[in-house]
Amino acid sequence: MHRHFEDLNPPRRLLFGAGPSNPEPRVLRAMAAPPLGTLDPAFTALVDEVAELCRYVFRTRSWRSFPAPGAARAGLEAVLASVVEAGDRVVVGVNGQFGALLAEIARRHGAAVATVEGEWGRVLEPDALLAALRQRPTRLVALVHADPSTGVVQPLAEIARACREHDALLLVDAALSLGGCTVDVDAWDLDACVGGLQKCLGGPAGLAPLTYGERVETVLAARRGPPRTSFLDLTQLQDQWSPERLPHHTPPAGLVYALREALRIVQTEGLERRWKRHRCVGAALAAGLEALGLRLFGDPRHRTPMLALAEVPEGVSEPRVRQRLLNDYGIEIAPGHGPLYGRVWRVGLMGYNARLESALAVLGALEAVLAAEGFGVAPHAAAQAAHAAYEDACAAV
Amino acid sequence: MHRHFEDLNPPRRLLFGAGPSNPEPRVLRAMAAPPLGTLDPAFTALVDEVAELCRYVFRTRSWRSFPAPGAARAGLEAVLASVVEAGDRVVVGVNGQFGALLAEIARRHGAAVATVEGEWGRVLEPDALLAALRQRPTRLVALVHADPSTGVVQPLAEIARACREHDALLLVDAALSLGGCTVDVDAWDLDACVGGLQKCLGGPAGLAPLTYGERVETVLAARRGPPRTSFLDLTQLQDQWSPERLPHHTPPAGLVYALREALRIVQTEGLERRWKRHRCVGAALAAGLEALGLRLFGDPRHRTPMLALAEVPEGVSEPRVRQRLLNDYGIEIAPGHGPLYGRVWRVGLMGYNARLESALAVLGALEAVLAAEGFGVAPHAAAQAAHAAYEDACAAV
Repeated sequence: MHRHFEDLNPPRRLLFGAGPSNPEPRVLRAMAAPPLGTLDPAFTALVDEVAELCRYVFRTRSWRSFPAPGAARAGLEAVLASVVEAGDRVVVGVNGQFGALLAEIARRHGAAVATVEGEWGRVLEPDALLAALRQRPTRLVALVHADPSTGVVQPLAEIARACREHDALLLVDAALSLGGCTVDVDAWDLDACVGGLQKCLGGPAGLAPLTYGERVETVLAARRGPPRTSFLDLTQLQDQWSPERLPHHTPPAGLVYALREALRIVQTEGLERRWKRHRCVGAALAAGLEALGLRLFGDPRHRTPMLALAEVPEGVSEPRVRQRLLNDYGIEIAPGHGPLYGRVWRVGLMGYNARLESALAVLGALEAVLAAEGFGVAPHAAAQAAHAAYEDACAAV
Repeated sequence: MHRHFEDLNPPRRLLFGAGPSNPEPRVLRAMAAPPLGTLDPAFTALVDEVAELCRYVFRTRSWRSFPAPGAARAGLEAVLASVVEAGDRVVVGVNGQFGALLAEIARRHGAAVATVEGEWGRVLEPDALLAALRQRPTRLVALVHADPSTGVVQPLAEIARACREHDALLLVDAALSLGGCTVDVDAWDLDACVGGLQKCLGGPAGLAPLTYGERVETVLAARRGPPRTSFLDLTQLQDQWSPERLPHHTPPAGLVYALREALRIVQTEGLERRWKRHRCVGAALAAGLEALGLRLFGDPRHRTPMLALAEVPEGVSEPRVRQRLLNDYGIEIAPGHGPLYGRVWRVGLMGYNARLESALAVLGALEAVLAAEGFGVAPHAAAQAAHAAYEDACAAV
């Protein structure tokens, strides 16, 4: 006898961790629309629209804008694997978990990696990267724009200029930031940028929008041999998404529908309004967390609007608070990454979740749980502080 | 002003090509259920169920059974990248497009590839592979079980025994066959096997169930260095799906739901009944195509039940027939691959589509289109032949 498997019935959750977030309901509905064949004209028309919407959200005119098949790390690996040849020098900024990941991926594809290390919670100073660029010819610099492990936003424009001067390409991991704060690929002159669908874009996990420009294209065309991957070969992926429609893999139609719907919603809202929404909600959350008596982690001048890191107070059990939030309120928040495990909670209000009521929900639940765990908090102070900060942020230009 | 993008409204299609096929409606609904966090106990419970269902469908007891994030070629690349180290000898059977792909992937990961070439439409003789195994120590043999470009099924049991004797691992691409005809991983003693979700399993594209055994595990553990990929590192994928739950990437929850639902439906139907259903419908389709006056491609002793290749008659425009089927009937069939482009149509009735009425629909539409294209066919002969063959096949043990 075989085991009986129950009907699918996932519990109701408010996904306020570092991603995945709750997708827009319209996006979930789109995902369930019936698939089309890869070369069906009705499908290729949607593919072209997705490419156009990718250009919109990255603020680029590069027609090399399309989703990589997989998580953001698949998109980053596609760029690194396809740009790097054995022995190429790659400079990676490492001041968080995801910088370390970029370094690891580059090494696996044969790069001679030089890391520029920085403190978690602080941004990398352009001077440190400049010094690394001056040492030796560098094929590519890889940086995380907003690292989900630290919650700080790395300024990029000055570094991009330095890369240009030293003839190095610049790859940016914008998995957390894309759709939630300014990402301006053409204005900043980024060579390649990879976003995440399940964070501030309000979609599900499974595809990673990316874009790259002419300088990358030139490097790809001049390779001595093929990349060390077939599935994530950027040129082949691009050929599938370009009007040539050279078949590579069967794209996940449901996810393509979801990506199109998510980006369509972003476009209808408008990027600037969406960024402001994340900023206002982030201000409310930060103010509320501080009113609860929690210290925020990271340089206050560079904190991400969509993800707050709150330090765990002395004597409070980090996992037990998370577990009570999940079990009693259906609210998921994330633990710290690596060296911050046990030391911070990470609370993300992204995409569809970036609303004042989300901040109020998690603050209210945290207030009750912290009180039950013996950490005294002033009742209602968090909600008041959140409201006030929200109004201030919304009133600001 | 930005462009306005219309509401998603994919046309109705009968996907009778080589995949994707129409998924089960219940699977599409499952895909739209709200995501859960990767470490949510409600999600990890589903992950464990998926692993159990993967074991069922592969007929294996290996707990190393889980989906790779991507198309079947992502699963195949995960195995090849993770098993192969630079210079390892890999023997690949190439008698179709997908054997050639296996060879290309292995080469990109540093293998010394020896191909055993065979004619398209015929199976590889064990002797040819045996001769290759005798030449030099071989790390791995890679074979396609049922190649979508040729529509023949490769017998595997004897080759698997030879691999054992020569201490070579055997990787099998069962993307087309899994769920549609016998795939018996433990009984055949396959070391690794990769399936496809969007063909005979009745799901959407985007995940590839795979399994591998202890001998592969031993090779992975003895590697001199990490694989040339991070996203498709089999050990890391396994660690994420195992009870350790080491985070790797954010899994696409909607696709995990869809995979679970698809496999649950397979388990409820039962593999043997499902194979028989594909066999009966395949017999009906083959008989009907022949009654239309079309010659079938490939060795009749080894044709796949789920995919028929019909030769294009003299004087008939291959693409125009496909286009008329799509435009006038909403029926998608596939063109030939590589050297067979323009020479055959590929008609697949897989998973949810493997039903007598699908065969009747495509035969009736083809009959009308071929007649309109000036290729004389006897009216109704195809439907009668299909019915008769279906009843014969169903009556057979």
